[in-house]
Amino acid sequence: MTRVCVTGGAGFIGSNLADRLQAQGCEVVVVDNISTGRREFLNDLLKRPGCELVEGNILDQDLLERAFTGCDWVFHLQANADVRYGLDHPTLDLEQNTVATSRVLEAMRATGVRRIVFSSTGSIYGEPTVFPTPEDAPFPVQTSLYGASKLACEGLISAYATGYDFTAVICRFVSILGERYTHGHVFDFYCSLKRDPTHLRVLGDGKQEKSYLYVQDCVAAILTAVENHADEPGSHIYNLGTDETVVVDNSIGVITDYLGVTPAIEHTGGHRGWVGDSPLILLDTARIRGLGWKPQVSIRDAVVRTLDWFEANEYAWRNQS
Amino acid sequence: MTRVCVTGGAGFIGSNLADRLQAQGCEVVVVDNISTGRREFLNDLLKRPGCELVEGNILDQDLLERAFTGCDWVFHLQANADVRYGLDHPTLDLEQNTVATSRVLEAMRATGVRRIVFSSTGSIYGEPTVFPTPEDAPFPVQTSLYGASKLACEGLISAYATGYDFTAVICRFVSILGERYTHGHVFDFYCSLKRDPTHLRVLGDGKQEKSYLYVQDCVAAILTAVENHADEPGSHIYNLGTDETVVVDNSIGVITDYLGVTPAIEHTGGHRGWVGDSPLILLDTARIRGLGWKPQVSIRDAVVRTLDWFEANEYAWRNQS
Repeated sequence: MTRVCVTGGAGFIGSNLADRLQAQGCEVVVVDNISTGRREFLNDLLKRPGCELVEGNILDQDLLERAFTGCDWVFHLQANADVRYGLDHPTLDLEQNTVATSRVLEAMRATGVRRIVFSSTGSIYGEPTVFPTPEDAPFPVQTSLYGASKLACEGLISAYATGYDFTAVICRFVSILGERYTHGHVFDFYCSLKRDPTHLRVLGDGKQEKSYLYVQDCVAAILTAVENHADEPGSHIYNLGTDETVVVDNSIGVITDYLGVTPAIEHTGGHRGWVGDSPLILLDTARIRGLGWKPQVSIRDAVVRTLDWFEANEYAWRNQS
Repeated sequence: MTRVCVTGGAGFIGSNLADRLQAQGCEVVVVDNISTGRREFLNDLLKRPGCELVEGNILDQDLLERAFTGCDWVFHLQANADVRYGLDHPTLDLEQNTVATSRVLEAMRATGVRRIVFSSTGSIYGEPTVFPTPEDAPFPVQTSLYGASKLACEGLISAYATGYDFTAVICRFVSILGERYTHGHVFDFYCSLKRDPTHLRVLGDGKQEKSYLYVQDCVAAILTAVENHADEPGSHIYNLGTDETVVVDNSIGVITDYLGVTPAIEHTGGHRGWVGDSPLILLDTARIRGLGWKPQVSIRDAVVRTLDWFEANEYAWRNQS
């Protein structure tokens, strides 16, 4: 692996992955439109020889072809990653995730790049009936437009793997925490408490159980899967998560303790934070563990590292929420 | 149910469904671009009061909204239904199936129609590991762009059912045979033998096992599901098929016997007719049978009825293949 492309490489997970790939000796081409991604996250990377930012629209196939030329792998992390607001703009996930992934695959065909890593999501399991949920869980019914769009991406990628001998590593993430984290529960709670430490509004009943994974553990898992399947065409599908879960109210406790605040907690009620929210996410990670990977950081420590990073990088959250 | 829309209503299954709905007393609006559909299939329907053809592009949301206004149900049967040639035009299934379904769903939201029937496919099970394959089979890996696109449609529809309280009946078909059948194995074999009765080229080893369902049995199953779930928002997913399978070489035997020809059979070899072809399709139909439906016509008789229809309707196959 000498030259790789990371789409969404200025984003939270993408930029951490890009840095790690560079540290391992890769030239890294980042494709990003710097909408949710941040230029600041590329400050170090772009000083390195052979690394570059191709700034533009993921739907622009010519741009993708320029970026992919000469690459061994495409790490396709660009996405509309907002699961919560899908119903407010019901064609956005289709365009930014499904159609975008088709463009990425076509640009790969055009440039002869045949290895792809895809960031999928535990949301594709809908409301699972089996916990922890394995990769071959019973055929799920989609409950969110985000999950539906990621499932559609997986289907496209696997069909390309079968039809055009692509090597595809598909990673189904739980929520990820850590340095450069810029949206989701912990972000929202932190920003809210910074504005008003006396009061916190929590969607749902606060008892939703979520699993989180530390971003560096996530990056390590991706690279473990990549190393194991570099020359093995077909679809290689892995859940990425920890064996822990945390109840939303408890993660709030970590944040309020950290900040030394004691807000009144207002629960909006119901078992779900929003329509399509899953009351419990816990993935079976036996398959990726079978390759020798295991997470190094607990959920609690991942929350704390995230908060440490917020404290040291006010630019990343001030006026963002 | 008084007024309904059938997309793809000039097609094979769609036109049979449209006729049956009309016979049950519905006003039927057909949306079709008359590309693979045939005007001849609408000859009877369009003489009936309140029935009309809205001719145009399924991607034209304004046209869809005109067609859907005042309807109780949308039967969304329009599709690029060609599983075999997906790799020759790898964005066609995405556009004609996935994006088209998004347009249909958005047009439904805009016009307040909240009930949809969707024609999905057993191809979404990829290469199943369980036979007969139930609706909650282990999470499949897609092997064709057609299957991937239909899976994407199912995901969108289920997410709309969750998010916007739609009632969705999703039917996963095996291959369908019968009157107005105009593409697939039996069509290809018949046309080939009409051109040259001495020789027949068969993709694969001829031992692929397929399940077929007679079109009127298919229509009856759809309407059974619709009657059972008319006022039940959510996703209702049914396999439609018979408990029989037929080996490709044996279905050829039925055709050659019917035509009284004895061609030399040339097998192109391999277990699959094409990349992404499934060596065995057999769906578990216990769920739809549980509603009281069962097929009335055997696979053999469905093949014969198809051939009878070809003999009586030369316009439908001459110069078409």
